[in-house]
Order: sequence, then C-alpha cells, then structure tokens
Amino acid sequence: MLKKLKQAVLEANLDLPKYGLVTFTWGNVSGIDREKGLVVIKPSGVPYEELKLEDLVVLDLEGQVVEGKLRPSSDTPTHLVLYKAFPQIGGIVHTHSPWATGWAQAGRGIPALGTTHADYFYGEIPCTRQMTEAEINGAYELETGNVIVETFKELDPSHMPGVLVNSHAPFNWGKDPHQAVHNAVVLEEVAKIAQQTFQLNPGVGPMERTLLDRHFLRKHGANAYYGQK
Amino acid sequence: MLKKLKQAVLEANLDLPKYGLVTFTWGNVSGIDREKGLVVIKPSGVPYEELKLEDLVVLDLEGQVVEGKLRPSSDTPTHLVLYKAFPQIGGIVHTHSPWATGWAQAGRGIPALGTTHADYFYGEIPCTRQMTEAEINGAYELETGNVIVETFKELDPSHMPGVLVNSHAPFNWGKDPHQAVHNAVVLEEVAKIAQQTFQLNPGVGPMERTLLDRHFLRKHGANAYYGQK
Amino acid sequence: MLKKLKQAVLEANLDLPKYGLVTFTWGNVSGIDREKGLVVIKPSGVPYEELKLEDLVVLDLEGQVVEGKLRPSSDTPTHLVLYKAFPQIGGIVHTHSPWATGWAQAGRGIPALGTTHADYFYGEIPCTRQMTEAEINGAYELETGNVIVETFKELDPSHMPGVLVNSHAPFNWGKDPHQAVHNAVVLEEVAKIAQQTFQLNPGVGPMERTLLDRHFLRKHGANAYYGQK
Amino acid sequence: MLKKLKQAVLEANLDLPKYGLVTFTWGNVSGIDREKGLVVIKPSGVPYEELKLEDLVVLDLEGQVVEGKLRPSSDTPTHLVLYKAFPQIGGIVHTHSPWATGWAQAGRGIPALGTTHADYFYGEIPCTRQMTEAEINGAYELETGNVIVETFKELDPSHMPGVLVNSHAPFNWGKDPHQAVHNAVVLEEVAKIAQQTFQLNPGVGPMERTLLDRHFLRKHGANAYYGQK
Repeated sequence: MLKKLKQAVLEANLDLPKYGLVTFTWGNVSGIDREKGLVVIKPSGVPYEELKLEDLVVLDLEGQVVEGKLRPSSDTPTHLVLYKAFPQIGGIVHTHSPWATGWAQAGRGIPALGTTHADYFYGEIPCTRQMTEAEINGAYELETGNVIVETFKELDPSHMPGVLVNSHAPFNWGKDPHQAVHNAVVLEEVAKIAQQTFQLNPGVGPMERTLLDRHFLRKHGANAYYGQK
Repeated sequence: MLKKLKQAVLEANLDLPKYGLVTFTWGNVSGIDREKGLVVIKPSGVPYEELKLEDLVVLDLEGQVVEGKLRPSSDTPTHLVLYKAFPQIGGIVHTHSPWATGWAQAGRGIPALGTTHADYFYGEIPCTRQMTEAEINGAYELETGNVIVETFKELDPSHMPGVLVNSHAPFNWGKDPHQAVHNAVVLEEVAKIAQQTFQLNPGVGPMERTLLDRHFLRKHGANAYYGQK
Repeated sequence: MLKKLKQAVLEANLDLPKYGLVTFTWGNVSGIDREKGLVVIKPSGVPYEELKLEDLVVLDLEGQVVEGKLRPSSDTPTHLVLYKAFPQIGGIVHTHSPWATGWAQAGRGIPALGTTHADYFYGEIPCTRQMTEAEINGAYELETGNVIVETFKELDPSHMPGVLVNSHAPFNWGKDPHQAVHNAVVLEEVAKIAQQTFQLNPGVGPMERTLLDRHFLRKHGANAYYGQK
Repeated sequence: MLKKLKQAVLEANLDLPKYGLVTFTWGNVSGIDREKGLVVIKPSGVPYEELKLEDLVVLDLEGQVVEGKLRPSSDTPTHLVLYKAFPQIGGIVHTHSPWATGWAQAGRGIPALGTTHADYFYGEIPCTRQMTEAEINGAYELETGNVIVETFKELDPSHMPGVLVNSHAPFNWGKDPHQAVHNAVVLEEVAKIAQQTFQLNPGVGPMERTLLDRHFLRKHGANAYYGQK
C-alpha cells in the first residue's frame, strides 16, 4: 500500500540529518496521496538511523491510523490541517533548523533581501502570531496548523513554501516530500544569510520588487527559464 | 565490577567528540550505581581516542578510589557533590561546548525563548553566581559543586538538567550517562539558537508560560505523549 | 574539442561543493579558450554529482551554442560580458557563498582589513550599484555583466579578482577556471573574517596602505617572493 | 639529519588542515634543535597534501639554508627572531585561523573571560601595535618578529603561548611543534568563545584574578594536578 509514497517519505526523512537540519529526532516529513486521501508520516521519536519503511504510519485526513504499529509524529495534526487547507501541496516537513528557529523565536518574518531568497520565496517569509492560551491548552498541534492557515489568508502556499511558527520553528512544504525538504534547506540558508546581512546593515530594507519578480519568475511559472526543459 | 555502568560511561565519553562538544580532552562524563554508592568517571587528561574500559576510575561518594590505576578527572569533586545533592540523577557530564560556554562567560542564564528549549528545560537555564576568593583558593572543585547546589535551592534537577557555571562552562545531568550527554547536546543547540535570537531581537522576553508548560509536559511526566509508549 | 579546457571547467565546478561554496546547484564555473574565442560553461540546474564532461556547453562570445545538448547556465550572458570586457581573465565563477552573499545583500563592499585580504585583493572588494528597473526587466543577466564592468571602470580585474553584485551574490575570476574558484574560496573566507572584525570593532578602518602594498606585491607581480619559483 | 625533528615538524604541519586552522597553504610550522642551533620549517606555498619529509627546509638561526631544495616559508625571518628571543620555546606556528584573525584585524587583545582561556593563557592574549611604514617597507618579516618581541617585554612566553599580530593573524608557540599547534587550536577556540561572550555581554570585564590563577596553575608549574603524572 502506497509503496512509492512511503519510499519517498522515508528518503525525505533521511535527508534531514544528511542536510544538517535536525538534532536527534527533531523533525518529521510527511507526504500525501491526494486520490486516496491518505497521508504517510514519520513515527514519533524514532531515530532516523533506525527508521524503516514499515515504521511509517498511514493515516486518513481525519487522523485515523490506517496502517502502522507505531504512534505517528506528535505534530501530525498540524500536517493534516495544512494538507486540507492547501490542496496544491504534496509534502510537508517540520524541523528545528537553528537559523530559521532563531527568527521564529525572535518573532520576526524574514524579509526578501536578495536573489537567493527570491529564487524560492516570493516575498517575506511570514512568522505566525503568538498563539492564545486557549489554543495552546486546547488541541495544540491542530491549532498550530490553524494559525499557519490564518497567516496564509492572503498568501499563495505555492509562492511561499514555508512559514515560521512563533516561539517555535519552521514548517515547509512542496509538491512532494522531496521538494518540501529542498525548501527547508533553502529556508535555513536564507535565514542564515539574512541574519548576517542585518548584522552588516541593520537598516537594510527589502530588495527591489522588480528584482524579486525577475528571480522568482525565472524559476517558477510559465515563463521560467532556469534549468533544463 | 560495574561492567555495565563502565560500558555506559565509556560510550557516553566517546559521544562527546562525536557530537562536537569537546576540543582535546575538555570534557568528562561519570555515572553512578546508587545501590553500591559507587561512581565511574573518566581519568584526567586521557584523549578520547585512547580511552579504554580499564582506564575508567571507580570511586565511592567520599572520593576514595576503589578501582583504577589512573587519576580521576580533576572535576571529580564537583560530580560527587552533585550526586549527593541530587539523588534523582544517574549521570553527569561537563564540557566546554562553545555556545554554552559563551553564556557562562557572559554570566547570563539562558531564558526559555522557544519550544526547542521548552522540550527539555523547564524555564531559564541558570548561571551560578561568581565564586568567592575563599571558594576558589579552597577546595575549588568541591565548591564548584556547592555553588551549583546553591543555585538549585528552588529548582528541581529533573526539570532543569543543566547549569552554567559562571566564568567557566556547563554541567549537565540525566537519569544515566547517556541521557546526561543527550542533554548537553541540547543545551549547546539551545544556547546557539538563543544567541541568534537575541541578535535579531535584543529585547525579546521569555516565551509564554502556557507554551513552556505544554511543550515540557508533552515530553515529560505522567501525561507525556511524545515518542513511543 | 577543447578537451583540456572542458576537463578544467568540470573539475572547477566539482570544487564548488568540495569547498562548501554551494547549496544544491547554486553556482557555475566557465573557462575560455582565447584563441578560438570559445567559452565552456556548466549547464543550467544540473547537480554537481551528476555532472559529466559531455554535459558542458560550448558557446562563442555572442552566446551561440557550438556544442552541447543542454541549456547553458542562466548566468551565461554575465560570463560573456566579463570575458569581453576583461581580456586578461580565463575563468569565471558565480556562487551564492553565504558570507560573501551577506555583504552583497547589505550592499557593502568589503574593506581591506588585514593581510589575508591583501594577499589576494588589492583594496576594497567592490559592491555594484543597484540595477535599474529597465536593466532588470531587460536583458537582465547581460546587464548584470554590464553593471560589474561599470564598477571596474577604474579597477584592474587582475588586482581585484572578484565583485559583489548588489542584492545578489559574488562573481570571481582568475587566469583559468581553477584560479577563479581559488579566489572564490578566499573571498568567502575574507568576507567571514571581515564580518567578525566589524562585530569586535564597528569603527575599524581599512588597513595601512603600506601593509596592503607589501602583502599584495609579495604574492603578485615581478617582485613576488611567496611560493616556489 | 634531524630525522626526529623533521618528522615532528611534518606531522605538526599536517595537523593544520586536520584541525581546520588553514585555508589552502595559509599556515606554517617550524621546530628547533637547540643544541645544533638548527630550525626545520615548511617550504613556501606547498600544499599540505603534497608535503613530504624531504621538502622541509633546514636553516641556521641566521637564515642560512643548510639542507633542502625548496624556498623556506616567507615567514621564516619571523620564526627565527622568536627562536632567538624566546629560548624556552621549541616550536612555532603561524596561521590565519579565522576567529583569531578577526581579533587581530580588530586590533584587540583577547581578555581572559573564563577558565577555557585560563587553562592555557595566563592573562589577556596581546595584540601587537601597528607596524611603522619603515618596518613594513624594510625587512618586513623580521620586523614582524621584532614587534612581537617588543610586545612580550613584560610577558613570559611560557605563560602566554601566542600573540595576535595587528592587521594580520596569530602566531603560537610551545615546547615543541606539536604543542605549538595544540596552542593554536586552543587560541582559535578561545577567540570564538570570547567573541560570542562579547555579543551577549558587551560590557563584560576580565575574569577574577583568583580564578585565572587557579586554572592556569592547576595545569602548569610545580603544583599542577591536571592529567596523569
């Protein structure tokens, strides 16, 4: 069942330590089969070096486990909210990658400061508002998803494949689990360079809008001309 | 004698270079057998790559060497004070891991700024007061233990598995040597992210109390729901 | 055709991940055969670990593809402008190496602060002016080359083997592709140390002119005495 | 001739890339045979991965080459001045290790901020004064040695095994080439932690004198009690 998707989710999870995005088990990747409405996700607290295909958990969009003996990631409700709200995405990743987490803890979005950013994120990478006591004491992981969705009211998740959760850490997504992790790597790099930029020039403003457009559209959409056809 | 504990202490010491926590021999791990009242600790100044099981030193809680031909770590008296004062701990580690050491040298505790911190440390990671001339000129390493214990007068070592010794470096502990090192890795990561956070937002305050509770208790205590059962 | 140059360009491209200058495919190296007037360059978006000799693209200085089945790097027009304007160079490299990119995003040139810098760059490493809307919306990559050439109106590219493109990232060059990458590694190191220097001493001015001369000329020109004859 | 010393100098040079202290050929180690009055040093500009025993250059203290076909390091005159002025040292290393170089470029000595520093350097690691035009235009490398010696007028090189050369980079030494490199590794680590400390607490003063004494003397001198007998 879902062999190919499971393989993709397994590989994407193993990419987290490979790219230096995680300490211990601090991250998880999921993928969705939109036709079947089923999500494959990492089990909670299992070290990447021990993770096997049969450890992955399969759930429906209501969180009902369909296959797997282990508990799914404790962040599963966040993933499910995002899959329901953003029909265009096929993979989600959550990490505590340190540079991006620094911005999340500072409660600041990352402004677009250069073309590295513009190649992937079409504007400022947003930081969610602080959660209320009720949200935290209630269905916390589900509410984490809700506050992300609220942040994207006027944003297209295809143009902005990531978010910083306030006082927490980033979530990223993409058309599949592999691309979600790719975007998480880019976010971490962009977060690092942006922090260095602010140290050199604390008053720096966002890059020119024209340059942002040029770079984002050179890689995305109908007129993209980066890479091979 | 104490085969299993020795093996655990050896492996935990070897984890220090593996996780990038030490330069040269700047760190040591110990473990305790509470029933026998015996502590196993790294010998002083021996490089990790040469460290063997039979090099480990066994002492009682008064510092009497019971087994081993080498001198125990010069920090042994600090370990012994902590084992006596904190009956709930089973392993202790001391390193000069650079990010945590920066906070210790700055004489600042690390406030809880986000969920990475809250998952392991239930509030601000404290920094001890400066030691007095008498303490430094006296039984210095033992007094280092005493000043840590003083700092924990109103703190539960199970909820706060580490401390920064002023002008010095961190100590961490856990239920066993392995968990002590695990907590040392987390402290170093938390110290790094907190420093980056302050650079982005120098006026940042501690995270919401509700969120701190939620994350700490999601991983610790009776109602924990992180990981596998 | 151009076997030796292709081999040099391939190796120089593979040096980019080796020296930690690139994330994913964020960099490209080219080389030129001045007699034939032909340029060899990396294809667009091909991962370094898959890059083979036959993937490289050969073009003339007008951008006409002479050999190769893949699209050349999207930055090719920038390379061609530089080869035409700077007849003394034989290789060019573009990366988004993070420390140098931080300076580019801050819109600041890197002043010569010490001998590490002076050994390779004869004065402040310049940052280009912001590009106009017309330049960005027009032949963008070609105009990127033009704005670099404009920046070098009074600078000798042999004495200043690199530049920061404003809101973008660095370009470096050298007598051949290998030396271009060598200079890119040095730029990244110099950018890092300069940033650290400014944090320690925000008011630091450029180094003494005499010391700059001494170090640059000890490694370059007729009276050089560094290295073997 | 000098087989054992050559082997020690070779190994110490190869330790420079191993410990991440050098980019390309930016560093050199020498050792001295005090009885014979002969110095063994790395040849200029030879990559570490190609360096062989027979490449090392043997000179007397006046700089006369006694053995070896290659040119000695261009920094050789600095080494010779130090060997003549500091009879207690047996090995010298020069690198451009980035954190220490940041302090040198900032023109600041590194104050003793904690026990990591105190374990090796007995007080503030000094930074030399700027060199005069005459010194730079004259026998530059020899004058670099002289300005270091001037800085140590009231300092004991055994208690302070390193220095920052203003606008340049560090030199370190020890009783032999191995220990010199050991001290260079420590300097780099101390420079990094001190920079992080100043970011957290810009007004931090030097550590307590008593604590400095305690740590330095616990590792050095007649009453040392760190390590094995």
